[in-house]
Amino acid sequence: MKKSIDPGTYACPTPVWCVGTYDDNNKANIMTIAWGGICCSVPPHLTVSVRKVTHTYAALLKRKCYTVSIPSVKYLNEADYFGIASGKDSDKFAISGLTATRSDIVDAPYVEEFPLIFECEVKHTVDIGGHVQFIGEIKGIKADDNVLNDNGLPAIEKVNPFVYATTSKEYWSLQEAVGKGFSSGRACIK
Amino acid sequence: MKKSIDPGTYACPTPVWCVGTYDDNNKANIMTIAWGGICCSVPPHLTVSVRKVTHTYAALLKRKCYTVSIPSVKYLNEADYFGIASGKDSDKFAISGLTATRSDIVDAPYVEEFPLIFECEVKHTVDIGGHVQFIGEIKGIKADDNVLNDNGLPAIEKVNPFVYATTSKEYWSLQEAVGKGFSSGRACIK
Repeated sequence: MKKSIDPGTYACPTPVWCVGTYDDNNKANIMTIAWGGICCSVPPHLTVSVRKVTHTYAALLKRKCYTVSIPSVKYLNEADYFGIASGKDSDKFAISGLTATRSDIVDAPYVEEFPLIFECEVKHTVDIGGHVQFIGEIKGIKADDNVLNDNGLPAIEKVNPFVYATTSKEYWSLQEAVGKGFSSGRACIK
Repeated sequence: MKKSIDPGTYACPTPVWCVGTYDDNNKANIMTIAWGGICCSVPPHLTVSVRKVTHTYAALLKRKCYTVSIPSVKYLNEADYFGIASGKDSDKFAISGLTATRSDIVDAPYVEEFPLIFECEVKHTVDIGGHVQFIGEIKGIKADDNVLNDNGLPAIEKVNPFVYATTSKEYWSLQEAVGKGFSSGRACIK
């Protein structure tokens, strides 16, 4: 027998992604979100949701593109800071000491020090309620050499991302591979 | 200097969520996805993306609601199986030995044995390409007593969810809390 809980954003795990945009003054801004995910394989798309009051929202509407920089655990403090401050009154790159690099694929900056970057063009915008969801096509990806696997693709244990736990407001690291997709489940087929 | 990679769905981490629906014959079906996430806080919404060829897609269009059952690592094999087989020709609940319970909030079934359940009504549908994204308002949540924290909310370490690593097709478990949201980042503010 299960207990009922009032509706809330308690689904887990959620990612920690840093959304890069340029504002009206061409200042690079960066904002951390946990409300996002991949939403399509072909062509590859990912979503980010932000509130209308954010500096990032205005930039997304105008520039119609953004980057997602994925932080390693090493950059947890900086990623959390990017979710605390507002680009309206802070230069978050300058204060954190991290580097804004202009994407050569989309009109948006990314965090040079973070290991894995997605360069996206907004294709759909959905006004849901307190948040607006931006659905972006992934037009380019950049990664540090040292996070790639033998096939030249990013390896999760090398990227070392972390997740956000909404109910405890904690960030959690990943531990180990515990199963194989499209394989472990064959044990269920008699 | 970063290396460029062709666009693909390599953003991480992604969740492992099991989407419950009823089909035309009122058979309970369940399908595992990694393309989804929370997309709005107020009112709370979450998304799931599925391909049009899936049995779940037809059910989502007709019933306009679904559940998301979040598996613990303990149920990794069953969750993976739910992503391998199709409800078109398999009764995945019967084969896995898990229990389909009818939601009392939405017209969809959930996995009784999984610790945390979200009951959703479809509010927006976005045809992106190979996948269609369903944006659902969370109308109810059900959780096992033993995964709740002192505030009566689901604790991530008790739910013990896992993530999907797209490039290695591995499932990864969570390790430990490594930081605090809206707090760790204050170290960056001089």
